[in-house]
Amino acid sequence: MSTNPRIYLDFNATAPIAPAAREAIAAAVEVLGNPSSIHAEGRAARDVVERARDRVATLAGRPREQVVFTSGGTESNALGVAALAAAVEARGGPRVVATTPLEHPSLRAAVAALAARGWTVRELPPLAAAVGDLGGVGLLAAAAVNHELGTVLDPAVVAAARAAGALVHLDAVQAAGKLALGTVDADALALSAHKLGGPQGTGALILAHGAADDALPATGHQERGRRGGTENVLGIAGFGAAAAALLPDPPATWAPVAERGARFEAALVDRLGARIHGASAPRIGGTINAAFPGAAGESIVIALDLAGVAVSTGAACTSGSVQPSPVLLGLGLPPSLAREAVRFSLGRTTTDAELDATLALLPPIVDRARRHRR
Amino acid sequence: MSTNPRIYLDFNATAPIAPAAREAIAAAVEVLGNPSSIHAEGRAARDVVERARDRVATLAGRPREQVVFTSGGTESNALGVAALAAAVEARGGPRVVATTPLEHPSLRAAVAALAARGWTVRELPPLAAAVGDLGGVGLLAAAAVNHELGTVLDPAVVAAARAAGALVHLDAVQAAGKLALGTVDADALALSAHKLGGPQGTGALILAHGAADDALPATGHQERGRRGGTENVLGIAGFGAAAAALLPDPPATWAPVAERGARFEAALVDRLGARIHGASAPRIGGTINAAFPGAAGESIVIALDLAGVAVSTGAACTSGSVQPSPVLLGLGLPPSLAREAVRFSLGRTTTDAELDATLALLPPIVDRARRHRR
Repeated sequence: MSTNPRIYLDFNATAPIAPAAREAIAAAVEVLGNPSSIHAEGRAARDVVERARDRVATLAGRPREQVVFTSGGTESNALGVAALAAAVEARGGPRVVATTPLEHPSLRAAVAALAARGWTVRELPPLAAAVGDLGGVGLLAAAAVNHELGTVLDPAVVAAARAAGALVHLDAVQAAGKLALGTVDADALALSAHKLGGPQGTGALILAHGAADDALPATGHQERGRRGGTENVLGIAGFGAAAAALLPDPPATWAPVAERGARFEAALVDRLGARIHGASAPRIGGTINAAFPGAAGESIVIALDLAGVAVSTGAACTSGSVQPSPVLLGLGLPPSLAREAVRFSLGRTTTDAELDATLALLPPIVDRARRHRR
Repeated sequence: MSTNPRIYLDFNATAPIAPAAREAIAAAVEVLGNPSSIHAEGRAARDVVERARDRVATLAGRPREQVVFTSGGTESNALGVAALAAAVEARGGPRVVATTPLEHPSLRAAVAALAARGWTVRELPPLAAAVGDLGGVGLLAAAAVNHELGTVLDPAVVAAARAAGALVHLDAVQAAGKLALGTVDADALALSAHKLGGPQGTGALILAHGAADDALPATGHQERGRRGGTENVLGIAGFGAAAAALLPDPPATWAPVAERGARFEAALVDRLGARIHGASAPRIGGTINAAFPGAAGESIVIALDLAGVAVSTGAACTSGSVQPSPVLLGLGLPPSLAREAVRFSLGRTTTDAELDATLALLPPIVDRARRHRR
């Protein structure tokens, strides 16, 4: 075991809680009251929620009325897809959902729920290569930024969906705090607090489509009837503070992370012969999905962990399973190559020294993993 | 405005976060990692979740494998009812759900979702008066302790459901920490952290029925595939600590609260002529749903708030609305009388001094409210 401080390069799985979010959570613990109560304690809790709503709305570049707080990205994807699908049905649109084979398990589950209700699923080519005409599509459901590859959804895909008259749900969990979301065309955006410095268990659905509000299951009056259940005041407070810490210009403060990641990636390629997955498409930067040919990704993840570096083979939501990444299989990789993947995902607190230390640790680890494989 | 410290008598809306839960939350903020990640950071987060699972399981008097963490009581009611209904359908049982008119809006919504799928809803008489034979019922969905009245579900109702071969979902949100849940017969129990000293936005479904697990929507691998989405580690940590603080014998430490509440209730009746709703049925104690004849409940809630005392007219989930409590209408009260309700709900930190101060404040407030009404 190393006695050095740990190096955390798994921001896409969960990001450290930002200092401002910690403070907001500590302050919110002192607030007693149910935001639906009319007494002073309730109004104080309501204030916490509504201040956070303003901040999340600003991050999303949308009016505050469109923010529906949820328990995280998974619920946001489920609610957004369900709501827009109901809106498509209400206006007699085609019950056809376009998606890609690279989506997060939670978005794939939301699409599968539509399929179970009789919708047709139209799988687009990965990375939007030659997406072509989307005539006959009622709903597009895709990630703005892919969680394993960092690839950015080609705006041409959204434009093609719009040309077909489709509604658009985007999983913006990995895009928030990196892209300027206000410029992204979508009727629904899914956000998750813990990917951007807030706590786990909190997220938001940004729902632009007024007609879709009625489609959400009526489980309580909260969030204007769009999502029932007492609000997660602590989590929402942390989410709001984390969002505010990224303002006013998330892309500007993400650019150095992307540059740092690009240098790290170049070193992986030059020094270790790494293959980079998704490199043919535009990427947000800071997410490097690398393979060291002949070495099992899982061996490298475990060896790096023992050496003090946290990385993953892919989505935390599928890691721990022995299956190769569905994202990489969706890209067309055979399982043997998909099993080589190692995802390094950086954040704003990642330093060059951490990346240099990781680069220094890797050669013997990769060598050992290759020999182990033979 | 009073300069005295506030008196909080709205524990059924939300309870203050317990000191042990605050500490657990503060400690969990320091834990970095997604519980699904295999590296050291992920394993540390997993440990937090699993330790809390043990504690919540102990509070529920059920094996740890039955604990499914959720975003709160609303989600737990929705998931439990849906899962058991699917289990009933899978075994060809009758698609008939028995419930009462007194249930929490979240449980009523869960039952309504079944009705929308073609189930028949059989409304039982309130407070289980003469429930009779439940033959033909496939599922019972009711609260173990009512949120507005504190009435305890008559075990004869569950027994009648069992005699009919029905599965049983109990909303145990207001029962947890008061009743010995291990002695309660149910296939599913809904719990909420913030009613027992944990934070808002966290709850659990205790799901005994193995066959029902498959019925839960597949949205992610977490919680053994029973509930998708990255776990709310902070919230779960606080939930576990709050649950542990109530052990080993919640009823024993609830008894003094019930006694304190009974004395307070007697004084309301003797000194102010209060009418007590639900008093004809066994009650858990500590929840006093009172009416001061001729005085609007909302006037009293607002006046008490200005005087420094937080109470409510009913469920926080419906307060703020001008509608009379559906629970009291369900009891058979006309709207004019239902609008007189004031719910005082006590907790373990409530003191006699607080109740005495409230009693001293009430007479002029009730008088003014009565005059206002005329």
